Amino acid sequence: MSSLSKESISHWLMGLQDDICERLETYESKARFREDRWSRDAGGGGRSRAISGEIIEKGGVNYSAVHGELPDKIQKALGISVSEFYATGVSIVLHPKNPFVPIIHMNVRFFETKGGPWWFGGGIDLTPHYVQEEDAAFFHTSLKSVCDKHDRAYFPKFKKWADDYFFVKHRNETRGIGGIFYDRLSGDDALSKQKHFNFMQDVGSAFIPIYTTLLDRNCQKKFDPEHKQWQKIRRGRYVEFNLVWDRGTKFGLDTNGRTESILMSLPPEVNWVYDHQVEDGSEEAKTLSLLKKDIDWASHKVGL
Amino acid sequence: MSSLSKESISHWLMGLQDDICERLETYESKARFREDRWSRDAGGGGRSRAISGEIIEKGGVNYSAVHGELPDKIQKALGISVSEFYATGVSIVLHPKNPFVPIIHMNVRFFETKGGPWWFGGGIDLTPHYVQEEDAAFFHTSLKSVCDKHDRAYFPKFKKWADDYFFVKHRNETRGIGGIFYDRLSGDDALSKQKHFNFMQDVGSAFIPIYTTLLDRNCQKKFDPEHKQWQKIRRGRYVEFNLVWDRGTKFGLDTNGRTESILMSLPPEVNWVYDHQVEDGSEEAKTLSLLKKDIDWASHKVGL
Repeated sequence: MSSLSKESISHWLMGLQDDICERLETYESKARFREDRWSRDAGGGGRSRAISGEIIEKGGVNYSAVHGELPDKIQKALGISVSEFYATGVSIVLHPKNPFVPIIHMNVRFFETKGGPWWFGGGIDLTPHYVQEEDAAFFHTSLKSVCDKHDRAYFPKFKKWADDYFFVKHRNETRGIGGIFYDRLSGDDALSKQKHFNFMQDVGSAFIPIYTTLLDRNCQKKFDPEHKQWQKIRRGRYVEFNLVWDRGTKFGLDTNGRTESILMSLPPEVNWVYDHQVEDGSEEAKTLSLLKKDIDWASHKVGL
Repeated sequence: MSSLSKESISHWLMGLQDDICERLETYESKARFREDRWSRDAGGGGRSRAISGEIIEKGGVNYSAVHGELPDKIQKALGISVSEFYATGVSIVLHPKNPFVPIIHMNVRFFETKGGPWWFGGGIDLTPHYVQEEDAAFFHTSLKSVCDKHDRAYFPKFKKWADDYFFVKHRNETRGIGGIFYDRLSGDDALSKQKHFNFMQDVGSAFIPIYTTLLDRNCQKKFDPEHKQWQKIRRGRYVEFNLVWDRGTKFGLDTNGRTESILMSLPPEVNWVYDHQVEDGSEEAKTLSLLKKDIDWASHKVGL
């Protein structure tokens, strides 16, 4: 069996970006993705796609494939000593207009060094402005199915990883209801590379059925200015996580990545209110009580 | 001459907080500062004051005096090897409603260790949404007068320090038009401590005459929704600086400071727009062209 090439992986990722954009556009009456192609002086480039619509208030679906020399600092941080690298991935963040539709994030990526190590990484996580138990259970069950197809050990491990990673330490709350996060899926042979690529494909392909279900369930729900205000406050927490704690964002800004593509994840219309408090027994209070690690959403019985 | 005590410095800072809050309230018909007193498990506490008004859309004027044991990590970062510390200061960030009034930030602080080094630090800097040359010249001239009274070398040095510090690296632009920034003003005797305290007092006392002048000049100016939208975008840059680059914010969040007080600096009503562009020749374009280091505002001839 011939070894899977980095070009094949990139090619598949471009197709994934196309499929996702095309499908999301069906929800919009007029808005379409705008594409910016960019290239990087040191090697490679990408296709950034952004939309501003009636359903997706602000969304980014980015593809990139970059290569070149890895600075010493980054080799050290990654614990490797090969300088020539190739990195390709798709990154998505969608900020819906309706506060009852959750924010979603997905990233699937492949990294390799010339003659040295390679690995896959990625994840999907959900950040509802209002945690709705049936959506949370559906989301985790869907991810569990994807994982279980490949390895029964994946879901518990990657679910915990997401809980730990998407944690807003200075607020002592999780960013949302988690999902899966994984990194450094690697191996010694062509077979393991193909195996991990298959997993990446299944994670990437799960995005559309998952998010369209959540859109279909929620995007026509009525909401008040109070719901919108709460959404803007929760978006502020999203900004705090991304700018203070997210290693991907830090890495991008530190290494002179394309700022507009990196910060596409930041929401429109955000509000910071000093010491905002929620009413006891409100939907907002319920949401806050559910922003914690280790909730077993996949076996959650809705309504109990 | 008896040595200046840390209690005297704290006492003066509390008075400064009182004066500034009282004076700012005269601009508001109804809004008043709300005070939260907090204490820190490990020692000390503070008085956080926040306002939400018609002129100051969101503002924080914080006083704190904390003490205790300095974690090893922080001793190392500060390059000292004494663990018992005392730190006191006043920190202000005001986000005005009118886009023609600039955002202002001031911090004055004193740090000492038991039997070891002590120092003063601080600064004031201005972040106009629209750079108006007469305001920028007035602001820098005022700070130069304060500095020159103490040491002719201060202003050039502290002005450059502010330019370098308040720099949004990933946007390649300064946060605003700078001001002064200084740290580690220290010495070997009681006389130098008193001398640096006098400087701190003059910097702190300059806040009200400077900012009330800028308010009086601009707070009744008419503005359109387009001006407001630009203000929200510029506020986004302010958030990016504070959460990604500001060492004070990082330090606070890393050391489990009071999150609501640290993040009081974040603006209300912020907007991120993907790849926002300004029109050639517009006021917005002019502002962007002036967000760079090394502009000699203090000797700027307005209108030339």
